[in-house]
Amino acid sequence: MAGLPDPPYWAAIFTSRRDEQPADGYAETADRMFELAAAQPGFLGFDTARADGDGITVCYWKTEADIVAWKAQTEHAAAQREGRARWYSSYDLRIARVERAYGWTRES
Amino acid sequence: MAGLPDPPYWAAIFTSRRDEQPADGYAETADRMFELAAAQPGFLGFDTARADGDGITVCYWKTEADIVAWKAQTEHAAAQREGRARWYSSYDLRIARVERAYGWTRES
Repeated sequence: MAGLPDPPYWAAIFTSRRDEQPADGYAETADRMFELAAAQPGFLGFDTARADGDGITVCYWKTEADIVAWKAQTEHAAAQREGRARWYSSYDLRIARVERAYGWTRES
Repeated sequence: MAGLPDPPYWAAIFTSRRDEQPADGYAETADRMFELAAAQPGFLGFDTARADGDGITVCYWKTEADIVAWKAQTEHAAAQREGRARWYSSYDLRIARVERAYGWTRES
């Protein structure tokens, strides 16, 4: 799971629906996007999970401008087009400002 | 997937780690919590996914006060205690204000 920086920071909440067995290239492109995002300014981490065809990826950023820059990143923009053309049947994106956060870990 | 109300509204982003085969009662309690949350004031919907042991649930609410009230709801508070005692090894909760949102659906 991602770390817990002190708020405020930003979250891009990406929920998507795709085929359970996506067309070729999905996994490679997804991995490449996580790698690219991690190299972007302001990247703070991400969480991702998928059950059947429904997935959620939450990516954390220092500022809203960092999210805008990531959306426009050239290779990412190409992947977005490919996602619409080949993998996703629908998706939603929510941009949110994290105001409070806390974590819990079982004592071993 | 949840609907897309007009921002601003609030998101409670719950990321968790648990055993892949959780102890008895997990699925029933999780289902009951979704049912209870949906009956709370201000509930707007939720998205949830889990891969292996890592899960993400994002629940959407009209106001931050609605999230505070849901956290304190009696049966939910008991489920939180049970989650810490029996199911989760760790979790994070982030409370965020959704500022922008948009969706895309493939034209059929």
